[in-house]
Amino acid sequence: MISRDPAELMAQAATGSRTALARLITLVESGGPSHLATAALAYRAPSPYVVGITGPPGAGKSTLTDQLITTVLNQGSFDEVDAVHDVSVLCVDPSSPFTGGAILGDRIRMQGHATNEHVFIRSMATRGHLGGLSLAVPDAVRVLGAANFRLTLVETVGVGQMEVEITSAADTTIVVVNPGWGDAMQANKAGLLEVADIFVINKADRPGVRETRRDLEQMLDLGADHEWRPVILDTVATTATGIRELWEAVISHRTFLQDGRVPQQRRARMRSELDKVLTAMVRSRIGALAHGDAYEAQVDALLANETDPYAAAALLLGDQ
Amino acid sequence: MISRDPAELMAQAATGSRTALARLITLVESGGPSHLATAALAYRAPSPYVVGITGPPGAGKSTLTDQLITTVLNQGSFDEVDAVHDVSVLCVDPSSPFTGGAILGDRIRMQGHATNEHVFIRSMATRGHLGGLSLAVPDAVRVLGAANFRLTLVETVGVGQMEVEITSAADTTIVVVNPGWGDAMQANKAGLLEVADIFVINKADRPGVRETRRDLEQMLDLGADHEWRPVILDTVATTATGIRELWEAVISHRTFLQDGRVPQQRRARMRSELDKVLTAMVRSRIGALAHGDAYEAQVDALLANETDPYAAAALLLGDQ
Repeated sequence: MISRDPAELMAQAATGSRTALARLITLVESGGPSHLATAALAYRAPSPYVVGITGPPGAGKSTLTDQLITTVLNQGSFDEVDAVHDVSVLCVDPSSPFTGGAILGDRIRMQGHATNEHVFIRSMATRGHLGGLSLAVPDAVRVLGAANFRLTLVETVGVGQMEVEITSAADTTIVVVNPGWGDAMQANKAGLLEVADIFVINKADRPGVRETRRDLEQMLDLGADHEWRPVILDTVATTATGIRELWEAVISHRTFLQDGRVPQQRRARMRSELDKVLTAMVRSRIGALAHGDAYEAQVDALLANETDPYAAAALLLGDQ
Repeated sequence: MISRDPAELMAQAATGSRTALARLITLVESGGPSHLATAALAYRAPSPYVVGITGPPGAGKSTLTDQLITTVLNQGSFDEVDAVHDVSVLCVDPSSPFTGGAILGDRIRMQGHATNEHVFIRSMATRGHLGGLSLAVPDAVRVLGAANFRLTLVETVGVGQMEVEITSAADTTIVVVNPGWGDAMQANKAGLLEVADIFVINKADRPGVRETRRDLEQMLDLGADHEWRPVILDTVATTATGIRELWEAVISHRTFLQDGRVPQQRRARMRSELDKVLTAMVRSRIGALAHGDAYEAQVDALLANETDPYAAAALLLGDQ
């Protein structure tokens, strides 16, 4: 029988047990004390390099992710020294409250890798996690790091604020669009522009590639002056066209980061994660505060004109 | 020269100094330590009875408020025993960030009372208050209570969520509409229905009164089964028509509350005020936390894989 103890599971996952790893990610998803214990262990390990893949539904993200897995398995990931070419994949659907069959059904191709011992694929959905998926995904990434993965692909369905937030925690973010993408994405162009390190025009065998590229170039010209100007690549994921170039672009971006921005970017990311946890903890604390005897005692004191809301709140928050 | 010390100002306000009273409300509006000191003093006094007056722009709220002032000055407010017939009025415009001339200009009629020593009129706008107007208004009401006012009229311009929130802190809420009001208010009918104890169809000399009344009755029929069914009255504020009936309805509602719901309602209001202060304090605390040495030390520890965001946040929140 599989353990329920995070420390034991972590030890098993670190020595290659996929069952233990899957269970740890479930603990992270489900929230609660085991989740905290899991995070406490996972964050002591180095984080994998995270490649985010996002874009509107139907853009071909799953097929592209599938092809990236094949490429990495064939030629190795960037860390040749490590000689660890295993690939982990998190498939995230913020619009779905449950890990569901539909997601896996859509990803039937990717599941061709599911029996490969060098590939770990997991769908994620939020259940009880304190801060929802925007916290659960970074925690799951850390668990993968503790299980010795050096590379995690995070595929996010959709183009909303939540998707952008999840993807912004990636080291390299690939935004997948199609020829004629403009109309579908109007609402969130700015958000995607902000997170994109690489734009992929997938299904580039269809008409409109040139216009889409021009559209993207114009947006980039108008955008802020970043050190890294996002690359724009054409792919046809179904025939593996352009995938090697895409992986090379990921490697280039990683090299760029390592030469300069990595410490800065990692610090910004840690701040963002810490702020999210702080906010979530404080929210849940206010909820708890508003249902205790101490709270009711302060309401009584207010009714008796013995205190004021500021003094009462300060007392409840432990300031006095 | 007028004092800057809240305790001294409060003593002066309690013995009738309008200058001291005005200064105290400015302290409340502007936030900061003096505001906290003021609130600490004001909340030790009993709260005045608060009559909220809200409704869309142009409905005639100011004229109606003006007429209510005259009625109360002539016949006395409800507390005959007190023999205190002074009226205080807060004019609140949540859409305006400043106390402005425009508001006072619109209320030129009401200013006819401004030189009357038994009337205190004050416009309020949010400046630096921790929780904005939804907290500053209750605090100002308490200051008026400490200055011996037993009745405060709170006139709120507009029909948005903020207005409803401010007005929901009133003991009796009058919602002012006009014949044919339906279209203008569609968006927030439910919110107004929830707070209204008395509906006034002002400008009732215009056509459409019967339809508006039927519309309101239907809404009330559909609404929740409350112990107090809101009264619907016709007024023509410009000619003082229906004002005495309006004031009698306020007195009826007050009697209803005193017979039953007051303790319960006051408790709910205190809870709501306390929750708002808690939330505001915690928000400002997170902001402060994210800019300190302790915070940076935790970010460093995260980068060194020595902690996790949950442990770091708990430490910053003083749990360990």
